[in-house]
Amino acid sequence: MNLILFTESDFCNTQHICLRDRRHKHIADIHKAQPNSLLRIGQINGHKGTGKVISIDDQQVTLHISLSTPPPAALPLTLLLALPRPKMLKRILQTASTMGVKELYLLNSYRVDKSYWSTPLLSEDSIKEQLLLGLEQAGDTQMPCVHIRKRFKPFVEDELPSISLNTRGLVAHPYDAISCPEPTTDPTTLAIGPEGGFIPYEVEKLQQAGLTPFHVGERILRVETAIPAIISRIFPII
Amino acid sequence: MNLILFTESDFCNTQHICLRDRRHKHIADIHKAQPNSLLRIGQINGHKGTGKVISIDDQQVTLHISLSTPPPAALPLTLLLALPRPKMLKRILQTASTMGVKELYLLNSYRVDKSYWSTPLLSEDSIKEQLLLGLEQAGDTQMPCVHIRKRFKPFVEDELPSISLNTRGLVAHPYDAISCPEPTTDPTTLAIGPEGGFIPYEVEKLQQAGLTPFHVGERILRVETAIPAIISRIFPII
Repeated sequence: MNLILFTESDFCNTQHICLRDRRHKHIADIHKAQPNSLLRIGQINGHKGTGKVISIDDQQVTLHISLSTPPPAALPLTLLLALPRPKMLKRILQTASTMGVKELYLLNSYRVDKSYWSTPLLSEDSIKEQLLLGLEQAGDTQMPCVHIRKRFKPFVEDELPSISLNTRGLVAHPYDAISCPEPTTDPTTLAIGPEGGFIPYEVEKLQQAGLTPFHVGERILRVETAIPAIISRIFPII
Repeated sequence: MNLILFTESDFCNTQHICLRDRRHKHIADIHKAQPNSLLRIGQINGHKGTGKVISIDDQQVTLHISLSTPPPAALPLTLLLALPRPKMLKRILQTASTMGVKELYLLNSYRVDKSYWSTPLLSEDSIKEQLLLGLEQAGDTQMPCVHIRKRFKPFVEDELPSISLNTRGLVAHPYDAISCPEPTTDPTTLAIGPEGGFIPYEVEKLQQAGLTPFHVGERILRVETAIPAIISRIFPII
């Protein structure tokens, strides 16, 4: 937890927040905070700054807050991911959130096992929990939006063309592909397939919707490794 | 398993290999291979190619092998990592191996908990297992070398200067740092610290040994995310 995040509901008055949950435990056990200790804090979807410990006991900690710094810039990226297997989903949501992704579509694909769609990890609360962990790691405050699309074709035909319009459209795909494009800050739409990749029909549909196949090299990366490797290559700053 | 790896000891004669372990299971259950099925194979520290199934039963599979393709190029990189917590070590070894790291030093640092050094995951067999999984994922055959250095100061003073000599020496460190250097294929020595980072004394010692602090941006990345993000930025091809 490199940043302690809070929301409107944590305010006890305009300048103070009271924390009782795992954040209290972290402040007590890891920071071993005492009155007057200074902690890095951030308001979700707001600024970052400093929290000064006013009081701390076994139950809760009260912080006087002072917010002045904007969060890191969001990536100008819409990321489309074939739904990963549940075992990987938590970590991948954290990774995307840590890297600064703010628009994420979890998408069906031929090689996504149907059973993956019934995982409780796709509940709104569970997704939010992982995104929050990613923000805490990065030192970011801006909560990403996750969109769930259980049907590939209607999404790619009806929604994707307007998402990818006027963006740099890319799909990570090793065959008949261009080399990885140069880093730019252009708005980008990037699709990353499932284990085993998108099938040719899907790549064709993604191309029709404005995405160009590209590769980053000969090695086949796991999705959780491909996300930072690709983002780090196509944007000049992360 | 994007590549089925074998060694000298798997040969039953000069052109055939016989596999009985998890590779047999993978070929039977995932590939559902039959006689004449073609599989992507690679000899550890050798070439890649095709294995044609000669026979398969409940116990073993026999493949006729034909090797022609060299493995992906190794990264011209020596990676120094502060020893990660055991929970993360397996995954980080896999990630480094998948990305093409061939020389990896696991290093002590002030913020490495002493208990991490007693994990059974540091046994030679356990490390090799994770490196192998990384190669199978990437489609690589060249086994990385992992060196264990339990004492920071003697390593940095006595060994590191000759390792970093005539290489691009870098330490990922967000303070008083240059921006991430441009991608080149120059031989590189890269150090990545523990959770919480190297302490100032350690950064100073690493600088004296030829490494320059640099940062990749404002976000704080987990080591397993930093490895692909940084490698992907400092080398033109991965």
